[in-house]
Amino acid sequence: MVTGIGDDCAVLRIPSGHEMLVTTDFSIENVHFRRDWHPPELVGWRCLTRGLSDIAAMGGEPLAAFLSLAIASDVPQQWVSRFLKGLLKLAKKFNVPLAGGDTAQSTEGIQADIIVIGSVPKGKAILRSGAKPGDQIYVTGKLGAASAILKNLQQSELSKSKRSRAKRVPVPIIRQLGPLPRLEIGQWLRERGMASAMIDLSDGLSTDLDHLCEESHVGAEIEAETIPRARLGSAKSRSAKNRSAKNPVALEFALHGGDDYELLFTSTEVIPSKIAGVEVERIGRITKMLGMRLLGDGEAQRLKAGGWEHFTKQG
Amino acid sequence: MVTGIGDDCAVLRIPSGHEMLVTTDFSIENVHFRRDWHPPELVGWRCLTRGLSDIAAMGGEPLAAFLSLAIASDVPQQWVSRFLKGLLKLAKKFNVPLAGGDTAQSTEGIQADIIVIGSVPKGKAILRSGAKPGDQIYVTGKLGAASAILKNLQQSELSKSKRSRAKRVPVPIIRQLGPLPRLEIGQWLRERGMASAMIDLSDGLSTDLDHLCEESHVGAEIEAETIPRARLGSAKSRSAKNRSAKNPVALEFALHGGDDYELLFTSTEVIPSKIAGVEVERIGRITKMLGMRLLGDGEAQRLKAGGWEHFTKQG
Repeated sequence: MVTGIGDDCAVLRIPSGHEMLVTTDFSIENVHFRRDWHPPELVGWRCLTRGLSDIAAMGGEPLAAFLSLAIASDVPQQWVSRFLKGLLKLAKKFNVPLAGGDTAQSTEGIQADIIVIGSVPKGKAILRSGAKPGDQIYVTGKLGAASAILKNLQQSELSKSKRSRAKRVPVPIIRQLGPLPRLEIGQWLRERGMASAMIDLSDGLSTDLDHLCEESHVGAEIEAETIPRARLGSAKSRSAKNRSAKNPVALEFALHGGDDYELLFTSTEVIPSKIAGVEVERIGRITKMLGMRLLGDGEAQRLKAGGWEHFTKQG
Repeated sequence: MVTGIGDDCAVLRIPSGHEMLVTTDFSIENVHFRRDWHPPELVGWRCLTRGLSDIAAMGGEPLAAFLSLAIASDVPQQWVSRFLKGLLKLAKKFNVPLAGGDTAQSTEGIQADIIVIGSVPKGKAILRSGAKPGDQIYVTGKLGAASAILKNLQQSELSKSKRSRAKRVPVPIIRQLGPLPRLEIGQWLRERGMASAMIDLSDGLSTDLDHLCEESHVGAEIEAETIPRARLGSAKSRSAKNRSAKNPVALEFALHGGDDYELLFTSTEVIPSKIAGVEVERIGRITKMLGMRLLGDGEAQRLKAGGWEHFTKQG
């Protein structure tokens, strides 16, 4: 970076022989997060994850981040400080400077727009449009944790409000670790030319696979039992002794749940079972026949984009 | 542009030997505009002007724009279409593709974040920090129109609500032409190396000059009567015959009013009275003594950053 905060624009230098990547993502209170459920550090961390994950999905390297932040006057300064702390912690981890942005007053709640600028060697960006029939479909990490936790919170709030309409009972805040953008994996695949197409899982496997298929003009078959499902401890198994008692989330969360920030990619080659320390699972293949199919129990059923719907706070 | 909307990131090519410019700016309902005062085309146009004007202030060329747009469910689709129409009209005028962004649901009103990417030959960006004592201070165009019109609207609303508390009387919508970002002037100055420092006037002359002085570690003297004031027709002089009856806005609007999107720059050289068809006025000089002074009627008074405060809708 040449010049940062304090001028009309930031001035950035792109490495020679590279193209530039640009992505922008909103994080909006009561649409993408709730102040009573999500700690501010997690909101800040995930805000930047959304941008970095898009850079990862192109096989790119992040150069700088910009934050446009609108805050209503009744949001405590401490919330903003903790939000920035979470965001900057992730920025430091990947050596991405926060190079500018905008701050504004909001009339209600919090609206954060994160912009990440990255670079990739000319012509080497991994697009959504490169999948061909016969390519294998791979996914990194485990899926469904964020959406399963949210569902639990929503149900717990619902049942509590049924028991006691008089007073709103506080719901336990999410203690989930912030998701890690898969930058190393994206770069590893790009350097070796091993991915024919790639997308990050922000809206949910079924929705994001559908985007990839549309852009590539192909279809896909997914084997239900190979989808790597996150494991969550139940209330009874929170002690260290009972870690083995953690249960995989229901298939619907791994299939349709959002906010996982893992990578989904296609390849004609044999992919190692781990890249950069993260498990990689083969979950199906690209077909010439359009549409998506879910295989399981000897049957095939039509799979539709059933992406996680962002919740809106009730009442 | 190589790849646009439809992938995880947009891929852009920066001309060789150039650096990249990045700027982001929020336009928020009831903070930066009001739906009952500003026609949607003007809001869209001005949203992009905010970004392009920052590129102009560096002497840069715009390459692509990105729009993150959050809209509450009760905002009519027609408002959004007309907003985009205004934005795209300005984009077309300067040949800037809208290359991506994000759309989200908002819980209240409209929040638009515009991101503009530009380029400038390496090391040639005109910064805020280059002004030296003895440099002359110049400003393009005429100042104060946007803030004077807003003040009229606010006063007219106030007096109407005093007369009739029963029913809210509609206020005439702003018919103002969209401001033009001064891209040609910025590039003209950069190509000739004629500006030592530059900033765009978005917050108001006194505030933006203060920013420039701070970044350059200098002070400034402004001659009140040389500040080019916009002329507005009064209600009595709206007919074509009475154009000559237009009156200059009060000095306070030209001095402190925001949303003008003209350029303020400093130079050691003699600057033509018009650049790219737009009048350029010399309004003062940079001083070694810190702080800003306003000269007029044989006196000097201390000038403080009195930038226009964004209004917040009452009630």
